[in-house]
Amino acid sequence: MAPQVHPVLIDGQWRPAEAKATFQACNPATRKWLPDEYPVSTWADCDAALDAAALAATELRRLPPEQIAAFLETYAARMLDRQAELIDMAHDETALPKSPRLADAELPRTVNQLKQAATAAREGSWRMATIDTQNGIRSYYAALGPVCVFGPNNFPFAFNSVAGGDFAAAIAAGNPVIGKANSSHPGTTRLFAEIALQAIEETQMPRATVQLLYRTAHEDGEHLVSDARVGATGYTGARLAGLKLKGAADAAGKPIYVELSSVNPVIILPGAVKERADELVAELTTSALMGTGQFCTNPGMIVLLAGAETESLIAELATRYQQAAVGTLLSAGVQTSLVESIEVLEHSGAQRLTGGPLPEPQDRFCCGNTLLRTTAAEFLSHPHVLQTEAFGNCTLLVVAESVEQIHQLIPTLEGNLTGCIYSDRNGTDDAAYDLLAPELRQRVGRLLNDKMPTGVAVSPAMNHGGPFPATGHPGFTAVGIPASLVRFAMLQCYDNVRPHRLPPELRNANPNGTMWRSIDGVWTQASVS
Amino acid sequence: MAPQVHPVLIDGQWRPAEAKATFQACNPATRKWLPDEYPVSTWADCDAALDAAALAATELRRLPPEQIAAFLETYAARMLDRQAELIDMAHDETALPKSPRLADAELPRTVNQLKQAATAAREGSWRMATIDTQNGIRSYYAALGPVCVFGPNNFPFAFNSVAGGDFAAAIAAGNPVIGKANSSHPGTTRLFAEIALQAIEETQMPRATVQLLYRTAHEDGEHLVSDARVGATGYTGARLAGLKLKGAADAAGKPIYVELSSVNPVIILPGAVKERADELVAELTTSALMGTGQFCTNPGMIVLLAGAETESLIAELATRYQQAAVGTLLSAGVQTSLVESIEVLEHSGAQRLTGGPLPEPQDRFCCGNTLLRTTAAEFLSHPHVLQTEAFGNCTLLVVAESVEQIHQLIPTLEGNLTGCIYSDRNGTDDAAYDLLAPELRQRVGRLLNDKMPTGVAVSPAMNHGGPFPATGHPGFTAVGIPASLVRFAMLQCYDNVRPHRLPPELRNANPNGTMWRSIDGVWTQASVS
Repeated sequence: MAPQVHPVLIDGQWRPAEAKATFQACNPATRKWLPDEYPVSTWADCDAALDAAALAATELRRLPPEQIAAFLETYAARMLDRQAELIDMAHDETALPKSPRLADAELPRTVNQLKQAATAAREGSWRMATIDTQNGIRSYYAALGPVCVFGPNNFPFAFNSVAGGDFAAAIAAGNPVIGKANSSHPGTTRLFAEIALQAIEETQMPRATVQLLYRTAHEDGEHLVSDARVGATGYTGARLAGLKLKGAADAAGKPIYVELSSVNPVIILPGAVKERADELVAELTTSALMGTGQFCTNPGMIVLLAGAETESLIAELATRYQQAAVGTLLSAGVQTSLVESIEVLEHSGAQRLTGGPLPEPQDRFCCGNTLLRTTAAEFLSHPHVLQTEAFGNCTLLVVAESVEQIHQLIPTLEGNLTGCIYSDRNGTDDAAYDLLAPELRQRVGRLLNDKMPTGVAVSPAMNHGGPFPATGHPGFTAVGIPASLVRFAMLQCYDNVRPHRLPPELRNANPNGTMWRSIDGVWTQASVS
Repeated sequence: MAPQVHPVLIDGQWRPAEAKATFQACNPATRKWLPDEYPVSTWADCDAALDAAALAATELRRLPPEQIAAFLETYAARMLDRQAELIDMAHDETALPKSPRLADAELPRTVNQLKQAATAAREGSWRMATIDTQNGIRSYYAALGPVCVFGPNNFPFAFNSVAGGDFAAAIAAGNPVIGKANSSHPGTTRLFAEIALQAIEETQMPRATVQLLYRTAHEDGEHLVSDARVGATGYTGARLAGLKLKGAADAAGKPIYVELSSVNPVIILPGAVKERADELVAELTTSALMGTGQFCTNPGMIVLLAGAETESLIAELATRYQQAAVGTLLSAGVQTSLVESIEVLEHSGAQRLTGGPLPEPQDRFCCGNTLLRTTAAEFLSHPHVLQTEAFGNCTLLVVAESVEQIHQLIPTLEGNLTGCIYSDRNGTDDAAYDLLAPELRQRVGRLLNDKMPTGVAVSPAMNHGGPFPATGHPGFTAVGIPASLVRFAMLQCYDNVRPHRLPPELRNANPNGTMWRSIDGVWTQASVS
């Protein structure tokens, strides 16, 4: 490889990649290639990273939780030390605004996630230690092995392969991470890996605790997630690529957690439209166009009941979409995919009220703020294509003739991360709510009332997950600590194992006095009496 | 269909199957076909059952936990009312001894599982309700939808498709069950379904809460587990059939929990052999030959260190295997498979010390109590074939030259349900234990000390699971209440949902005063204050 190609991070060393090709990131705001060249690794790099990760996994199992926590906290602190550099780089690679988005929202969230993960690792309640004193059986969740993380394009910090939510969860559960950088922000990912390596050295962690590859051929990615040395994989991104990885991992019996796509239906009942149309228009415009609509939980489909008030709301919404600044999209791929999805929706019976592709040439990646409408009857004729995710600043309005028609529509919805119902405060929408909510409930991971789905709090009660194809398993969340850690753990049971051979978390004495354990059916922070 | 063919149970009605073929069970103790004819259903029956189950799932969601608990308890009680009939039928179909096995062990276990499941349903702690009062976010595990259960041949009661562990877990989590009878005991399964229907009527449960099909074509089974109306599937049985179902369900994004195979390695360290060879021989013979070795957790592979004491132990073991009565195998298929597996092991370098196929004709399904031996060096040359599961009364001894050689062997092991290490009481084996246990730990769901793996206590701390290919996911257990229920649930999050619209389990008031919930990070039975 030419010397100017960035090296990969394997086993604690930045070493030249075994690569056959390189790639560059593109500045979405200028459509210009950024100067740095990154390698497309061959299997040799994957293999070396897997070997190192397997060793690191063994070493990590021997470390006290305190050391893992210290690493996560040191990493978070060092990130803040280099925040200006991170923000500049992420801005160049994604065109996301430095402020408030990158500096004031996403970086603090990322730092906070790492700190919460550190607290969870130190405290240990995430392990759900369960002790049956009568039968002499004790179990808990323990580290599974090396975790591959494939981060998405839309959160260069908070879901970054080597800094984001899956990363934090995997490390806190005691696993080394092999990060596969998102190709749209390799430089940001590189900076994180540099900072992670510094934190690894400062806290004397196994040197392969965090490794970084920038890109591989698809088939190498599939081998990676199904390799015997891997514990599990976290993937957030496009559906097709995710399903290929999932197919490979499933066939090998390797857990993989994929977050694929979601249109996040929002049902606005007529009483709410009557009561607060202005508020609704403002909330919806903000939520739908924030980050140029490039959120997993973007409200992509709004269901309304036909009527004069709805027509006014739609007209006002169209005006707002026209007036709102057109944001920059993350990449050429996002622009192409968005424009294609809009075409698919239009060809399937949706009418464009505003927006659509902007005349080329543009000096950046973008698309007009797009509002489409269709009827519930039309939707019911083509439910599959009319659920095409138009990732970006595009919203589909579905106008129904009756609540009963909405009730017919819900069972045609695919699994989604979220579903919302807005209703009025006087109870006139209550009967409709009671009819619709139970159906919607089964199809979404998170049900909201009177609130847009963007904004995913890092809360122990959060579910950032949902039925397929939103994610690959309806029982897990990608956000929310400690629940997200369990994905990267295995249930380990000890039967009649001699007391001094038990892990500290399963011995009679509570290891830190704060860990919650279920002892003979009672959750307690006390020791076994 | 001819009128004498047994009907299937769909939507609360015993109705003639839409079938193109029939089958009969065989009495393994006589090799004679039993008179009853059972249908091989076509897709029409699956489709009808799915429709009814989907409706029942909706109805079940509206029922109070108390009603589900009452059903499970009533079902358990009615089972005992008809226990003589159940035991006779199961004995005819499986040749398992009426006493102590069926009457004194398996039926009480089955009844106990249903009662524990009822308690869990009523009490609700299994839902892991998590309340974040500050963010207004609340989540819990809730019923997923119709569960298909494919039961194994070796537990006609305790893992029965419409009465066993997966069944109890699925119902307690609030889901209807479509049972696919194991073809070796359709009559036992029919009796259970009759009793279940009686309990459904007595407790006014949705009539499709329990449905029964006897058999389908393989491709219909694959359609069944991947159908949009299905919530999840539980499967226990042969690896090949399980992997086909798993492939179909995975591709459709439907959760499936498969328990496939396990050789359950037992490592006996030299100090233990010196200290208590007689005890070890007795324990091992009992555990390995119990139920003619037809247990998921049968100790199929014993690792010993070469030496004079080991040779004595092996000689004594061979004597015991020769002296022990030869049990009856569950079916012609089990006998064929066992004989073939023994051949595979012998052709791969194992030496037969005793046992092997018995001269035909035999008046029952059986095979001699078989003891094979090989060396660790040989094992390391063919680790894959020498891990062939010989389901039945066959044990492979692996004699190693050194502890280090055992240490090399462990990483070649596939995922297993259990792994055991026997060590002496004076500490001479401790160094070896400390070397081997961490490696074995990662490859098994349950690690035991000084205890054989048969006997799977229904304990909240039990893990009857393990890394692939023992099961399909290392985070779940098939036995142990309440943990086994979570498999058949989805994580449901409520964000900003108005208080009166929350399910009772997530409202401020603790719904029953006994349910454990995590409120702002504290596990408590109290209400939100």
